[in-house]
Amino acid sequence: MRPDGPGLYDFTREAQAVVARSGVAVGLATCFVRHTSASLVIQENADPDVQTDLMAFFRRLVPEGDPLYRHTDEGPDDMPAHVKAALTSVSLGIPVGEGQLVLGTWQGIYLFEHRRRPSGREVVIHVTGEEIEHGD
Amino acid sequence: MRPDGPGLYDFTREAQAVVARSGVAVGLATCFVRHTSASLVIQENADPDVQTDLMAFFRRLVPEGDPLYRHTDEGPDDMPAHVKAALTSVSLGIPVGEGQLVLGTWQGIYLFEHRRRPSGREVVIHVTGEEIEHGD
Amino acid sequence: MRPDGPGLYDFTREAQAVVARSGVAVGLATCFVRHTSASLVIQENADPDVQTDLMAFFRRLVPEGDPLYRHTDEGPDDMPAHVKAALTSVSLGIPVGEGQLVLGTWQGIYLFEHRRRPSGREVVIHVTGEEIEHGD
Repeated sequence: MRPDGPGLYDFTREAQAVVARSGVAVGLATCFVRHTSASLVIQENADPDVQTDLMAFFRRLVPEGDPLYRHTDEGPDDMPAHVKAALTSVSLGIPVGEGQLVLGTWQGIYLFEHRRRPSGREVVIHVTGEEIEHGD
Repeated sequence: MRPDGPGLYDFTREAQAVVARSGVAVGLATCFVRHTSASLVIQENADPDVQTDLMAFFRRLVPEGDPLYRHTDEGPDDMPAHVKAALTSVSLGIPVGEGQLVLGTWQGIYLFEHRRRPSGREVVIHVTGEEIEHGD
Repeated sequence: MRPDGPGLYDFTREAQAVVARSGVAVGLATCFVRHTSASLVIQENADPDVQTDLMAFFRRLVPEGDPLYRHTDEGPDDMPAHVKAALTSVSLGIPVGEGQLVLGTWQGIYLFEHRRRPSGREVVIHVTGEEIEHGD
């Protein structure tokens, strides 16, 4: 993924596509982000204000320029990014049923980017389970 | 589940029963909540004050009526609910051993309800692994 | 594990060794801590200041001696430990590829000990997947 700044990046469709390609009918999908300054969240996908508010909350809870931090040489947004990642998730296990992620109606899967100038972000999606059987 | 307001609702017994019915001896159980204003936590099941204190902490950390929020039309407890869900978990992976969840002595699995008037809450439990072999 | 006080204890090497012993080439590893006053985090393994800052943040966010708490008879560091555990993770699902955890370059897996005088801590690691095939 190529986030261009702090924000929530929806990859629900991509994750569903990975599940579909796997052929798994009933099983488990695990999304894992290979970084420590971005994270994963499942959040409401209806009103975009939810995402704006969520980011505003985390920005206030974990402010930049906090005199608490010693680790400052990678920029003022780096240590807050690590803290936000610890407060959310790096991996999400989502059951698969009928060949799809069993997400609720209002659930979207997001990369939560915490840095201002992120490089490319890698999310690994692992799917396991019983495959759909096809008759001959 | 039918929570009747904010609180921690223990479903450890139900989860253990799902594992038992699956016949899996060694494997992995994944609990997943299909909502964005309730979440899952594993917490101490001994002193009920732990749950009271935990809720009090989250209520103070993520107060209602916060002027930060734009998303207010679903009620003053809705946006705080989304934030609390992001701060805790929507999915929990728990290994299975000897046909049971390998929970520690003091660990209970809870639905963490954040809304005052929730509707029914759905938790999906997926179990995978090697089944117990029965001799003939 | 035998933590001797609050801190982040790296067990990446031990987790990789469990995966190697399992013989699984492609699959999923789940780390699960069987306690409610310690937790798990994946964090940067390069600059030790990141860990110091992370602990400082959590210590300030969830202070000891908070008049909010009723559950105080197990010591002033017990209820903050439960809250910190709820804010981070008890389980981590990490995909396995080429016989190894697919961790990013800067990701280490840590037991996050929250208590001053912890007893031994048990982390269960479950690995599932397809084993490496060996030619004859």
